[in-house]
Amino acid sequence: ENQKRKDWGCLPYIAQVLQASDTKKLVHAVKFGLALVLVSLLYMLEVVHDKLGNNAMWAVMTVVVLTEYTVGATVIKGLNRGVGTTLGGGLGCFVAMLAQEIGGIGKAVAIGMSIFILGAAATYMRLVPNIKKKYDYGVLIFILTLSLVSISGVRGNEIIQVASDRLSSIFMGFAITAFTSLFIFPLWAGDELHSSLASQFDSIAQSIEDFLDDHIVQANGKKGTDEARKLSTCFSVLTSKSTHESLANFARWEPWHGRFGFQYPWNKYLEIARLLQELAANIITAEGFMKTKLEVCHTSTKELCKGASSLLAGAMRELGGSILHMKQFQQQDIAGEAFQEMRAELSAYIQVHSSATTINHSGAVDNGMKCSAGHSMFLLISMVEILDRVQ
Amino acid sequence: ENQKRKDWGCLPYIAQVLQASDTKKLVHAVKFGLALVLVSLLYMLEVVHDKLGNNAMWAVMTVVVLTEYTVGATVIKGLNRGVGTTLGGGLGCFVAMLAQEIGGIGKAVAIGMSIFILGAAATYMRLVPNIKKKYDYGVLIFILTLSLVSISGVRGNEIIQVASDRLSSIFMGFAITAFTSLFIFPLWAGDELHSSLASQFDSIAQSIEDFLDDHIVQANGKKGTDEARKLSTCFSVLTSKSTHESLANFARWEPWHGRFGFQYPWNKYLEIARLLQELAANIITAEGFMKTKLEVCHTSTKELCKGASSLLAGAMRELGGSILHMKQFQQQDIAGEAFQEMRAELSAYIQVHSSATTINHSGAVDNGMKCSAGHSMFLLISMVEILDRVQ
Repeated sequence: ENQKRKDWGCLPYIAQVLQASDTKKLVHAVKFGLALVLVSLLYMLEVVHDKLGNNAMWAVMTVVVLTEYTVGATVIKGLNRGVGTTLGGGLGCFVAMLAQEIGGIGKAVAIGMSIFILGAAATYMRLVPNIKKKYDYGVLIFILTLSLVSISGVRGNEIIQVASDRLSSIFMGFAITAFTSLFIFPLWAGDELHSSLASQFDSIAQSIEDFLDDHIVQANGKKGTDEARKLSTCFSVLTSKSTHESLANFARWEPWHGRFGFQYPWNKYLEIARLLQELAANIITAEGFMKTKLEVCHTSTKELCKGASSLLAGAMRELGGSILHMKQFQQQDIAGEAFQEMRAELSAYIQVHSSATTINHSGAVDNGMKCSAGHSMFLLISMVEILDRVQ
Repeated sequence: ENQKRKDWGCLPYIAQVLQASDTKKLVHAVKFGLALVLVSLLYMLEVVHDKLGNNAMWAVMTVVVLTEYTVGATVIKGLNRGVGTTLGGGLGCFVAMLAQEIGGIGKAVAIGMSIFILGAAATYMRLVPNIKKKYDYGVLIFILTLSLVSISGVRGNEIIQVASDRLSSIFMGFAITAFTSLFIFPLWAGDELHSSLASQFDSIAQSIEDFLDDHIVQANGKKGTDEARKLSTCFSVLTSKSTHESLANFARWEPWHGRFGFQYPWNKYLEIARLLQELAANIITAEGFMKTKLEVCHTSTKELCKGASSLLAGAMRELGGSILHMKQFQQQDIAGEAFQEMRAELSAYIQVHSSATTINHSGAVDNGMKCSAGHSMFLLISMVEILDRVQ
């Protein structure tokens, strides 16, 4: 009880600083500690232990293995485990009882063969990409339960009893996990996806501004501050695809919460994420152009690029903010017009510049960058359109 | 025995068709089935069962959980499990014995508090990115073992006995896994990384050729065959970063095998992969340019682009082949010269073209694409340089 009071003493403090991301991790750690203590009680209480005995161990294992950072991940893992255990246990009981019927030396052979064939088949399934992506854990648990239940048939008596005790023990573990995950400061995968996407708009904006600073404003031969960091931001946007996909997958399994209803358009988030990836690819390409040349841009080019870059960066930030706070992007028409104007200006400039007297491939590079910027604007406009559909 | 003979009967057939990737999966499945049967024997044999009893279950669990597709992954998981179990078990024994000293109601409280504090701390550690990447499984096992051993201290007698039986059982499971993984048709993470990288050269080459076909050769308004597939190849190159990183991490733990020695430069592979990503980003950008315009290129532009694209694609294929077969890239000097020439030709063309009379932003688009192609060549040249260092 002493220790129970301690747990609850922490909670107001936690609630107070719940917003910060690092605090979320702390919350998760405390929740998990709490779940462990709760499940230990199952083992410690005489009433429960008399019934379950050492099978209470399975409850502990369930809690440890099922507890994931977000609600959606826990739900999916729980479903996988539940279905895997049930199927594996059922099939295992069948194998064990069949072996009992055979008896003698044939018993061990029958069990061995069943384990070999079913185990190999299930393992092969685990390597099929689509199954691996979604049901990997379930198949693993299927194999495990099947093997354990089957081989207990060798010396088997009370197979059904053992299986049902374990099942109820696992169910208790699952109940505890579900309780701590869902009802004590739940951490939603939907929230994570939402804020991750919004922050990516900011990182892209930051990259555009860095690009502007390093190559256009102070493009006098000296290197930008830390190119590696700059590019790594873009690369992290590019490689966040799988993270976003799994978060969206988890989010689909989460109940109604906060501002996210059922059937919330998580797929739109993935579409936007894909457009951001294209934008990041553009920035990487533009950085590449810059690396291959040494000339300084014309002053007029500089001015134009500066205008375009800051327009882009500003719009990205606004879009990120509007996603984060789930507001309609207000200046959409104005921004659209600004983009159209900027695009026309860039096109005109490219023509004038083309017939001007700039020599060697400096011109090409400048054009390339302007193309890139112009193209980014098209991307941005399509993004605004998609945002429209989301909101 | 009957069933044993069956296993060995399969092997020649498997050896015969070992090359294909799908057969690798089949091999893995059969190996895993074999490991399951071997570990079941532990439970079935009277000698072993008399000593270990139901703890043999832990051996089964170890085999199921540790068996990974590649040798390196199995080794890393095994090390994680070994260290996690030892640390968790040791600390758990300490907690249990401490609780025994206290006795009475204080015993349960002491155990509960220890589990809460250690469990929460370890969970927090699991969320730190660097630890999560490499030691996630080890920390999970640490928490699990710690909880199980600690709570067994509540009713505890023979804590040490239980712990050591489990440890020896887990060790047997590990031995069986290591045997099947290392000595029966081992599947190496290094091989996977090697062939994945080589095949990415081919996909990039394919993308360049598709780009050529769709936009330059038959650029008469009609859409290319399947743009989604084309872009998805590039995106899959972009997003393969984490796969490659984990494969390289596994490969570092693999013993000498085939043509890969110790200290094989896996980091160079990651560098090359990164350059391929930049190239993929370029192609995506170039596709983006093409989407935003509707004009048909000039015939002279077409010819030049065709030449550049096929030069690029051919070089990519050769590079991929030379990596796959670990041969020096033969025509390096010739290719280097060809690239220099092509670069000069493109630069000259851009200048001429700039002062020509093409109107509106068609010119910009053409330039952009040529810049992109030119830039890709710089990338390619740097790739050749890196390859040099690798070989």
